Amino acid sequence: MPPGGAQARAEQKATLQEMAHKLFTSDEMGTFLDHLAPLTENHAYDSDEASLVRVTAREYEKRRRIPPDLVAERARVSTLAHSAWENARQQADFELFQPHLERLVDLSVRIAQALGYSEHIYDALLDLFEPQMKTSTVTSIFEKMKNALVPFVQRISSSTQEIDDNVLRGNFAEEKQWELGQAVLARIGFDPTRGRQDLSVHPFTTAFSPDDVRLTTRINPRFLASGLFGTIHEGGHALYEQGIPTSLVRTPLCDGASMSVHESQSRMWENIVGRSRPFWQFWLPELRQSFPDHFQGVDQETLYRAVNRVAPGFIRVEADEVTYNLHIFVRFELETALLEGTLQAQDLPDAWNAKMESYLGLTPPNDALGVLQDVHWSGALFGYFPTYALGNLLAVQFYNQAVQEHPEIPDRIAQGDFTQLLMWLRERIHKHGARYTPQEIVLKATGTGIDAAPFVDYIQIKYAEIYGL
Amino acid sequence: MPPGGAQARAEQKATLQEMAHKLFTSDEMGTFLDHLAPLTENHAYDSDEASLVRVTAREYEKRRRIPPDLVAERARVSTLAHSAWENARQQADFELFQPHLERLVDLSVRIAQALGYSEHIYDALLDLFEPQMKTSTVTSIFEKMKNALVPFVQRISSSTQEIDDNVLRGNFAEEKQWELGQAVLARIGFDPTRGRQDLSVHPFTTAFSPDDVRLTTRINPRFLASGLFGTIHEGGHALYEQGIPTSLVRTPLCDGASMSVHESQSRMWENIVGRSRPFWQFWLPELRQSFPDHFQGVDQETLYRAVNRVAPGFIRVEADEVTYNLHIFVRFELETALLEGTLQAQDLPDAWNAKMESYLGLTPPNDALGVLQDVHWSGALFGYFPTYALGNLLAVQFYNQAVQEHPEIPDRIAQGDFTQLLMWLRERIHKHGARYTPQEIVLKATGTGIDAAPFVDYIQIKYAEIYGL
Repeated sequence: MPPGGAQARAEQKATLQEMAHKLFTSDEMGTFLDHLAPLTENHAYDSDEASLVRVTAREYEKRRRIPPDLVAERARVSTLAHSAWENARQQADFELFQPHLERLVDLSVRIAQALGYSEHIYDALLDLFEPQMKTSTVTSIFEKMKNALVPFVQRISSSTQEIDDNVLRGNFAEEKQWELGQAVLARIGFDPTRGRQDLSVHPFTTAFSPDDVRLTTRINPRFLASGLFGTIHEGGHALYEQGIPTSLVRTPLCDGASMSVHESQSRMWENIVGRSRPFWQFWLPELRQSFPDHFQGVDQETLYRAVNRVAPGFIRVEADEVTYNLHIFVRFELETALLEGTLQAQDLPDAWNAKMESYLGLTPPNDALGVLQDVHWSGALFGYFPTYALGNLLAVQFYNQAVQEHPEIPDRIAQGDFTQLLMWLRERIHKHGARYTPQEIVLKATGTGIDAAPFVDYIQIKYAEIYGL
Repeated sequence: MPPGGAQARAEQKATLQEMAHKLFTSDEMGTFLDHLAPLTENHAYDSDEASLVRVTAREYEKRRRIPPDLVAERARVSTLAHSAWENARQQADFELFQPHLERLVDLSVRIAQALGYSEHIYDALLDLFEPQMKTSTVTSIFEKMKNALVPFVQRISSSTQEIDDNVLRGNFAEEKQWELGQAVLARIGFDPTRGRQDLSVHPFTTAFSPDDVRLTTRINPRFLASGLFGTIHEGGHALYEQGIPTSLVRTPLCDGASMSVHESQSRMWENIVGRSRPFWQFWLPELRQSFPDHFQGVDQETLYRAVNRVAPGFIRVEADEVTYNLHIFVRFELETALLEGTLQAQDLPDAWNAKMESYLGLTPPNDALGVLQDVHWSGALFGYFPTYALGNLLAVQFYNQAVQEHPEIPDRIAQGDFTQLLMWLRERIHKHGARYTPQEIVLKATGTGIDAAPFVDYIQIKYAEIYGL
């Protein structure tokens, strides 16, 4: 978008969001739902009919509590806040963003109050991204992770093992990187007749229907991992969207179960699959074909270690899978405190830096590398960050279950065959769309609830071996 | 769009068009307009207030006559027809498209009947693109043009002057072509902070607001004229959109006056400016910089003649400015006959070929190069074609008037200064948005009505000189 277009888009988005909100929360919709509810009593809980009415009614009850003018105000306030944030980040000056953040917090508190909550004000916002998840549950899960991961990262940092990722750095022709990304996408099961990949500044995935799923990547000519793992990550989101049955198109069921379940798909493909030995057993020869100068003499173990290098850093989106969640804890704890009112916006940068020091042993040298790095808060997206960490947990739980049922999956991956894993995901997760809550889908797929232990085990076993701990 | 996405988009477009139609033609809107009309009586005819109510009311009266289900049906029928047309064109087989065309004609007749008309059924559809224009007026204008142009093209064809455009053919690096196009756009006055250019298969311009105007071009590495004149053409549309005052944003006045007035802008910049001697006086040195191998030894006159080569051909969008309108006459006469019922869809290819022979002296070897070449009919756009030819007439009328008031314009263009022409267009045309009807805007800008004579004079003088007639 040309810079001049921002104001027009802000107004257009505010209008559309307000209209959509009004249409969805109209009395007429309530009447429809009241009529339909008894008609679905004879249908099974997971039938299309009962699920459609149940999920729509739940969403209706929730959205109806938010006054339309708050919806439009949120769109307008966050558009201005977004511009201010971009400017503040560029100048590494939190004060330029602070008044906007204050308005955003105030607005989010009002939205949370309109939504209502029984335990914690943050519950109301969390529920918008992660239905029925509670702040207390997140806190308890994160405490378990923190207790294991913070000392584990310290052990890695003080390990004598030196791992570098030099093999991924140098000059990698953008065309070749693009071709490699397209080849990986096709092989993991992305259907190019029902979607496409493009380039963008920030990678993302969006779906207009399961038959039109668009993902983007960015290519760094000096660092191969950036585009490749970006493509695999977004590819995980895209496979989920392409796997939703077309029979659910244009209904509220045509969506993922939640943000964390969506993120579980992208992180599974990116990390558990994409940074595994079997994956590179198949792809190293391909890499050698694409970049003979770089990989002719490189063995699989060197590559495996390079893509799994652990290095505490300032930036969340560049974090490895061991330190990634520590960045989430910082954000979760700070945003709950902002909403509770126990932390004021003006004290946020200091609080941020203190937590970074405590969890990652680093103090950001400026706000651009610290509190201003992420776009979310400028868009009033309080309650979103935890879903990234929950997605990491679910990724391990789902993958473990798939392998328990089909122990040959890693061997198949080593042969470049991802069908069995994808079929398991299709059957247990994708095909349900938004029919189930995250809790239901996790229970049905794995027989248990969301749990930090499998993730912690996965990390500790994998990286203890890599770092000789 | 990936091929699988077509069906989803068809349904989405049908829904959105039906919703927009219902909202705009609601009783509530009628009540607003009834209340507002008397309040604007004290405002000048061309005030924002009076214009907004007048133009909206006119559009409301028109659109309200079309039943919403016909709007949705048109969206659905034309989406399927579009796919059938693509397939038919690829196979050069009209019969694959014929049943769709029959449905489209039938649907358009029903829409025209719903809209109502006093003289000719085609008037109802023409009015959707060219407010208040009549079929009888178009017929009379086109007859005058035909009487002059058909024999004139024959004279050119039998001229002994040989003109070739070889200097525009060869290998032109796409990057250099892109840079040249961007430079031309910037210099004619396109504001890149409020718009952008991209590549696409078919060039087009779209505006989300005057502050966000997007145009596209296509680059042919073997033929320089394709991308360059495509960019200038779309640039003319884009300048119009960027010139509409932001005070009109999000009102029905934030638009061009009509399709023909819009086309007058693109064709003026493309042909009257872009294919003139002064233009190339400035740009030839630039061309030599961009493509030294091609243009080092080329003089201005050779280039001028190359970009003005006349060659009757099968394809409208590739036609030169002398033969271009003949293609429009073919389409206009055939589509009026289809709607009148005096021509049946099954007889269309023969009728097409007969007219091509009569006006251009050519018989298309197949339907892909004939009746199937244009997308418009597959989108139910009957009544659209004449606006291209009317735009060509207006381009000359506007340009002549600008030069009469500012005789130094050609000299300024020769110095690479397009400001004076653009300022005239801004002041007389762009800044009014859709406030005036095309008739009003032509009268205010030139003191006369739309007229074939200035165009015919322009063509005859320019090309008699080039071809030594």
